[in-house]
Amino acid sequence: MNIVGHLINGQINTDAARTQEVFNPATGLASKQVALASKQTVEEAIAAAEAAYPQWRNTPAIKRARIMFRFKELLEQNADRICELIGEEHGKISHDAAGELQRGIENVEYACGIPELLKGEYSKNVGPNIDSWSEFQPLGVVAGITPFNFPAMVPMWMFPLAIACGNTFVLKPSERDPSSTLFIAQLLHEAGLPEGVLNVVNGDKEAVDVLLTDERIKAVSFVGSTPIAEYIYTTANANGKRCQALGGAKNHAIVMPDADMDNAVNQLLGAAFGSSGERCMALSVAVAVGDAAADALVAKMRDAMQTLKVGAYSDSSNDFGPVITRQHQQKVVGYIDSAEADGASVVVDGRAPQVSGYEEGFFVGATLIDGVTPAMQSYQEEIFGPVLQVVRVESMDEAMQLINDHEYGNGTCIFTRDGEAARYFSDHIQVGMVGINIPLPVPVAYHSFGGWKRSLFGDLHAYGPDGVRFYTKRKTITQRWPSAGVREGAEFSMPTMK
Amino acid sequence: MNIVGHLINGQINTDAARTQEVFNPATGLASKQVALASKQTVEEAIAAAEAAYPQWRNTPAIKRARIMFRFKELLEQNADRICELIGEEHGKISHDAAGELQRGIENVEYACGIPELLKGEYSKNVGPNIDSWSEFQPLGVVAGITPFNFPAMVPMWMFPLAIACGNTFVLKPSERDPSSTLFIAQLLHEAGLPEGVLNVVNGDKEAVDVLLTDERIKAVSFVGSTPIAEYIYTTANANGKRCQALGGAKNHAIVMPDADMDNAVNQLLGAAFGSSGERCMALSVAVAVGDAAADALVAKMRDAMQTLKVGAYSDSSNDFGPVITRQHQQKVVGYIDSAEADGASVVVDGRAPQVSGYEEGFFVGATLIDGVTPAMQSYQEEIFGPVLQVVRVESMDEAMQLINDHEYGNGTCIFTRDGEAARYFSDHIQVGMVGINIPLPVPVAYHSFGGWKRSLFGDLHAYGPDGVRFYTKRKTITQRWPSAGVREGAEFSMPTMK
Amino acid sequence: MNIVGHLINGQINTDAARTQEVFNPATGLASKQVALASKQTVEEAIAAAEAAYPQWRNTPAIKRARIMFRFKELLEQNADRICELIGEEHGKISHDAAGELQRGIENVEYACGIPELLKGEYSKNVGPNIDSWSEFQPLGVVAGITPFNFPAMVPMWMFPLAIACGNTFVLKPSERDPSSTLFIAQLLHEAGLPEGVLNVVNGDKEAVDVLLTDERIKAVSFVGSTPIAEYIYTTANANGKRCQALGGAKNHAIVMPDADMDNAVNQLLGAAFGSSGERCMALSVAVAVGDAAADALVAKMRDAMQTLKVGAYSDSSNDFGPVITRQHQQKVVGYIDSAEADGASVVVDGRAPQVSGYEEGFFVGATLIDGVTPAMQSYQEEIFGPVLQVVRVESMDEAMQLINDHEYGNGTCIFTRDGEAARYFSDHIQVGMVGINIPLPVPVAYHSFGGWKRSLFGDLHAYGPDGVRFYTKRKTITQRWPSAGVREGAEFSMPTMK
Amino acid sequence: MNIVGHLINGQINTDAARTQEVFNPATGLASKQVALASKQTVEEAIAAAEAAYPQWRNTPAIKRARIMFRFKELLEQNADRICELIGEEHGKISHDAAGELQRGIENVEYACGIPELLKGEYSKNVGPNIDSWSEFQPLGVVAGITPFNFPAMVPMWMFPLAIACGNTFVLKPSERDPSSTLFIAQLLHEAGLPEGVLNVVNGDKEAVDVLLTDERIKAVSFVGSTPIAEYIYTTANANGKRCQALGGAKNHAIVMPDADMDNAVNQLLGAAFGSSGERCMALSVAVAVGDAAADALVAKMRDAMQTLKVGAYSDSSNDFGPVITRQHQQKVVGYIDSAEADGASVVVDGRAPQVSGYEEGFFVGATLIDGVTPAMQSYQEEIFGPVLQVVRVESMDEAMQLINDHEYGNGTCIFTRDGEAARYFSDHIQVGMVGINIPLPVPVAYHSFGGWKRSLFGDLHAYGPDGVRFYTKRKTITQRWPSAGVREGAEFSMPTMK
Repeated sequence: MNIVGHLINGQINTDAARTQEVFNPATGLASKQVALASKQTVEEAIAAAEAAYPQWRNTPAIKRARIMFRFKELLEQNADRICELIGEEHGKISHDAAGELQRGIENVEYACGIPELLKGEYSKNVGPNIDSWSEFQPLGVVAGITPFNFPAMVPMWMFPLAIACGNTFVLKPSERDPSSTLFIAQLLHEAGLPEGVLNVVNGDKEAVDVLLTDERIKAVSFVGSTPIAEYIYTTANANGKRCQALGGAKNHAIVMPDADMDNAVNQLLGAAFGSSGERCMALSVAVAVGDAAADALVAKMRDAMQTLKVGAYSDSSNDFGPVITRQHQQKVVGYIDSAEADGASVVVDGRAPQVSGYEEGFFVGATLIDGVTPAMQSYQEEIFGPVLQVVRVESMDEAMQLINDHEYGNGTCIFTRDGEAARYFSDHIQVGMVGINIPLPVPVAYHSFGGWKRSLFGDLHAYGPDGVRFYTKRKTITQRWPSAGVREGAEFSMPTMK
Repeated sequence: MNIVGHLINGQINTDAARTQEVFNPATGLASKQVALASKQTVEEAIAAAEAAYPQWRNTPAIKRARIMFRFKELLEQNADRICELIGEEHGKISHDAAGELQRGIENVEYACGIPELLKGEYSKNVGPNIDSWSEFQPLGVVAGITPFNFPAMVPMWMFPLAIACGNTFVLKPSERDPSSTLFIAQLLHEAGLPEGVLNVVNGDKEAVDVLLTDERIKAVSFVGSTPIAEYIYTTANANGKRCQALGGAKNHAIVMPDADMDNAVNQLLGAAFGSSGERCMALSVAVAVGDAAADALVAKMRDAMQTLKVGAYSDSSNDFGPVITRQHQQKVVGYIDSAEADGASVVVDGRAPQVSGYEEGFFVGATLIDGVTPAMQSYQEEIFGPVLQVVRVESMDEAMQLINDHEYGNGTCIFTRDGEAARYFSDHIQVGMVGINIPLPVPVAYHSFGGWKRSLFGDLHAYGPDGVRFYTKRKTITQRWPSAGVREGAEFSMPTMK
Repeated sequence: MNIVGHLINGQINTDAARTQEVFNPATGLASKQVALASKQTVEEAIAAAEAAYPQWRNTPAIKRARIMFRFKELLEQNADRICELIGEEHGKISHDAAGELQRGIENVEYACGIPELLKGEYSKNVGPNIDSWSEFQPLGVVAGITPFNFPAMVPMWMFPLAIACGNTFVLKPSERDPSSTLFIAQLLHEAGLPEGVLNVVNGDKEAVDVLLTDERIKAVSFVGSTPIAEYIYTTANANGKRCQALGGAKNHAIVMPDADMDNAVNQLLGAAFGSSGERCMALSVAVAVGDAAADALVAKMRDAMQTLKVGAYSDSSNDFGPVITRQHQQKVVGYIDSAEADGASVVVDGRAPQVSGYEEGFFVGATLIDGVTPAMQSYQEEIFGPVLQVVRVESMDEAMQLINDHEYGNGTCIFTRDGEAARYFSDHIQVGMVGINIPLPVPVAYHSFGGWKRSLFGDLHAYGPDGVRFYTKRKTITQRWPSAGVREGAEFSMPTMK
Repeated sequence: MNIVGHLINGQINTDAARTQEVFNPATGLASKQVALASKQTVEEAIAAAEAAYPQWRNTPAIKRARIMFRFKELLEQNADRICELIGEEHGKISHDAAGELQRGIENVEYACGIPELLKGEYSKNVGPNIDSWSEFQPLGVVAGITPFNFPAMVPMWMFPLAIACGNTFVLKPSERDPSSTLFIAQLLHEAGLPEGVLNVVNGDKEAVDVLLTDERIKAVSFVGSTPIAEYIYTTANANGKRCQALGGAKNHAIVMPDADMDNAVNQLLGAAFGSSGERCMALSVAVAVGDAAADALVAKMRDAMQTLKVGAYSDSSNDFGPVITRQHQQKVVGYIDSAEADGASVVVDGRAPQVSGYEEGFFVGATLIDGVTPAMQSYQEEIFGPVLQVVRVESMDEAMQLINDHEYGNGTCIFTRDGEAARYFSDHIQVGMVGINIPLPVPVAYHSFGGWKRSLFGDLHAYGPDGVRFYTKRKTITQRWPSAGVREGAEFSMPTMK
């Protein structure tokens, strides 16, 4: 059986004392194994990164950028292969994988602008003949720990920018779908990256804990669930590292009475069920203001959902694929059961989807639940499946209160035509990423990604301008030259030591 | 005996169930007591800040700025009174207190520019007819915990900017010298600050722990010693707050053979002994490159130090005053003893200064120690007293290695005329604030203050641009309006709900 | 009779070989004369500015800023006196003068942030061991030429920022109402400005032409009518100066069918008639989309205009005052006549207002004209009086076409509740300053003021960030130090000349 | 004979009613002709650009950027062909052409970051519930007029950034060497640029004058000699266009006594003679401070110049090639003659170089002239040939005065090791681009290029951040929504017109 290994100092390493099966979630079968790095292997990766650091740090930013330019080309040329690898191990349909890859590439494009992004601030004459400026210097060796749901995109939120800033990197991707990530890392080497600047280790908690405690690691970026994010953040901080740890979400859309309902329904379909809802920005709760809006929304959603098609990644006519594991499939179904048991109404039921030829796949069909209330467990927790729940409220303020009271604050959206409603909403909602008639308001690569409340631990958001700030530290220099030596009078005599 | 109380919701509160003496370190006598806030009192302050927040947050930035403009005027008008209060309780000479105050006012001046500093980033057409922008919104209630050595300046590194950003604030100043801080907070109210926006609680660990754990506090800024800074940072983070915690220092100056030695000596006098060395930016180690430079440096320093005068704050002809407490005086003397015991040479000995009329004051005289080595305790730890130690090395690289190996990385300096040496030094030294012929390279208020390594815990430096980023959180809005309703065709009919 | 003189090198100069009467437009009487500077007097002012330049340029920005801080205080303390002087000579009511002054002060507040605004861009390692940075250095002596309609505000769009940037300045205010400007310049000296940094010359074309041709003047800022602006711009450019010249306007508001009509009417009252319409941002054309909106607008405006009160500046219950001269009064009346003759309907007629006790004043009452068409002269030209014209169109696109076809492009506004309409309008309208439900969208001081098309000649807008760029020139330094001399090996020997 | 045509709306157009010969300056022979566009042809190009504008303006910046990413790839793939075309018509050696091309590509790389560069400024709550932001919108159709000496680079200073900003473009390259420019424009189309966005017209003054007067052209960028630059600037401005016009230069290097002389000589060789000195940044005057420095400099230069090799572009062992025309060759020789006649000493004489096999080529050999004085014509005017003149002065201040007194202010340099001298020089020298030990301080693409004094007409420098500002105009929107309609209470009823 094929073993997915590590990439250390530019070489594939198969430290395979311990391995774990990698499944195709559409078939339910495992055809590969992933090596789980030992402490020693992770330390080798860190050592490689540390050794590569001094030269990489001193490489002019424009030269670092040019490797990113070439990397972008290679990613585009190899897009089909990457999407195939994502599909095999994650299960997402090829068009969805292509979208993920594109979002990843956008971060590479942003990193190509690093000479502009690294500009410091220069002040002449902060005092008489005293100048001062700030530089943004790289941190050293930094680590990234990434989740299964975006094996291509989320790593590319991190390492392109970190590396462009002059850092070297150790990446620990998800052990559920490691192959596309590894392949992408190899492409960056093909683009000219010196050995040791990017290293990939596959593994589990053993590997993670090395990254969190080894003093040579200066910073950790993490994306995953909130409990793990909190552990990562606290542990990394206690070990003297800077950290940004992105966690879970429960993203609500408010549907106002004046919304363009056809547009809203059309948008919600993709936002709720795309990638089986396994996105931290998935729109999982629709809050309808007034029963008229709610009734219209539910009726139109029910109709629209008839056309959705769930199946294997290889058939691009499918809308979405399986969830990641058997256990997760059962967990999602359990949330639907609990909502029903709590009195909600399952309007469209995806608990037993028929996917011909893939009977053992980890599928859940698109599910619509009406009459959900804040007291239900299915409302309080992140389901991470293709389930849209509808909550009915009497007013926009009530809708906003729901959102502000939820522990998560990643993304949210309002559907309205009214400028005032949109402005009030975006100003006062306690959520980091806000959409106006856009249910999946993922910031573009030149803005930054980050939730509020328990959706993100750390001061700075991921990628974009905040990413540059996260991957650099400020150094402020203040300079005054002693009174004119060479310039005045002394210029024809030898300078003497006073 | 006069009791220094708290300022909560615009009112002086004397929760004096527990108090502590406030000494005049020049006389060694206590003439005041400071109230130590109970948990309940701190919670009252937090509640006041929380109540004031919604209205303050919605106040236009320019109106918040105008209170800072007025505050600056009042600080200047009341400068003598503030310096008097600092002198009485901290002991620093009036010209030094005036310098401290001025540095504090500079942060108020910077906060006056908050409308410019809060500008977000706006992108038209991130997609077809989709716009996106980032706002920097305030955090809510934030806390500051400040040290005894700059009772005016360090609080003003924090609250003016935090408040200008739209936050409300709870400040816990040092219980050693609380009066100037409290008076300054009252001036801000006189300048028009609404009640509850800034609250001051005096106290000890009981008060601190409320600030670190109360969930209404969203962020904590701290300046103090490294062990406490680490505790503050870890605890605040574990309680879901953002935190920046500034700790200790051991600031080295490299004296190169080509240095303008008279200039270097002149600068080192103030940098080493000013404020009795009780500054986190005090220059406490001079690293001379080559014995010729070292000999010249020691000889010139010894001569120059003859003119230094230690005494009470009220005599402005004094160069510096006492240290803060009896215990600290003994600790500083202990470090000098240990250096001597370890084989260093005490060139100028300040262990028994004669300060006529102030025999009970906590004085230590200016001290110069030659032949110090990295193995000595006096080298490894922060002395925080008027002691300059000279280390002799053979090369600039050796000097830089010393600095890079030290656990602290706050400030550093090089004395040279040579452009290349200065550039190499500032590029490669592992220190956050670097001086070229400037031994006290405290960044001006429009840059940011922060050390590296164990001198600062957190991603963002204090005050300046980083301060703005620290006291705000990013919100990114992505907006698309549904297809033309009012604009096209429908403009004469009533909009209908679809 | 009192003579208003010049302010050169900190001294009042009364070069009064030629003078001109200064009228009180409410009474129609002249009680002062203004000196008209000869070529020689202007050259003295330029010489003073040139002499003051080197030292002012080298003064740290923060010290320049502090004079602006003090200037703001003095402006606020002397606000009543300034408004009185404006009222006497310009005629605007005290509350309007206070508003003008406040807008001027906001530019002083912005200039207080100059240390931040002047920051250059610093790039480390643009090549191996090569650094590069850009500084924004002052230009030298710059000139401002300002109009009668804002004798306090428009000069303060210019000189505070220019001076804060390190330039020295020669200001030529309007000879119609010179006193408030002169008084304000004196206050800046009281605030601590060194002599010669700001000089004021009163005068006419003779003075202007010196400023446009003297080679010591490096830049000219102008605000006035379009023909003069074009002359100024072309002449200044031909004489090697940079120039920004702001001209006339014809500002339209589109009133959409979904507008909040009461709000729109309320806003239009001030925007159309405030300051007798003598503002380059006055809203002089309302374009109603659909007859229903037009009818409602005209009816509500007519009613609302009944309450408007025209009179002398000294009675603060008046809404607006006289126009600036007898000739201008006649010109405004002539435009109303022409509209009527061209077939428009004068709904409210201000051609013969009764202002008891001020029968000789230059008054025009608030006037509303319906049925105006683009072919009418009153539509094509800037009236600069209290006249609002209503144009009726069938669609928003037709309304926008009108605006885009007009030669001016200063300000514009749309009244709507609809997000899409507002976005489409602001994106595609060929106007520099756009209001959404704001009829007078004058940018705040930390943005920049500028029209498009023939409303502004030059690349950069006035005040705000563009103002900083206008008053500075970029210098880019690229630096590499020769191989290590002092640092490596040679450090104990004398440097030798190779 | 091959005719080089125009590129209009994506198609090659050979309007060849008038043509002009294109020479190979190494052989002195013409083998091609270039079409000279008629007024009508230029107007067709403008019409094509105007037609393409609306759609291009609305294309998201990231999509515009992606064409630049692809363009960069194609430029790199076709580098040899481009350098060949440059060599044939301009004469520069292949390594020099490659350097030029690389500098051009760097501007394309910068343009790839346009989404970041176009970000506007967003201010929340400039007043209660009022927001304001500034956008940077494209201008429309803009024109570029470029010189013979950098047929690849200078056009790429202009059109990549202008186009990335959303403008459409008409480029008029030099008629001396048009082929590489045209080929590059074709590559941009191959990269996916829509037809009409970039158009190229070859021509002479007839074409230029259309571009300067046609009202559809909104801006003109020009690089050439100062008299033409002034004409372009004045004419464009008088026709309502924004303009930046870069002119001539006389770039001085100060050689200080403490300079690393071997380094200085090595650098000056390339800076003075590279590309036959036909660069506006060529270093043509060395100012030696003190006779010792001067003697050393002249001696070392004379020796070093022995190794220089002049010849045809196709032999990459050559250091530089011919000048552009027979007339220019004679003009350069005339300057050397005049210097000699004026009393200067021709140390190395390049007036009669022997280039075997290319006896008819337009060659001038590397020339060194000592004893030049400011009174000489050869000092006052731009020679634009491989001639380095040495001026001897007694002090650094005298050297700086020379530079500041010269009419040009493009580039300059100082050779020194001394931090103070470098800082004083860069601060006070009246030149836009300053090198510290770098004789050709051309700013990198992410800074901006521009001289001072009569070397540049306009406010904004070329390319880099200033380029973005030049190719966009600021629009400031101020927005307030009327009181809550949909949000409060009214949310279940139909909105009514009030």
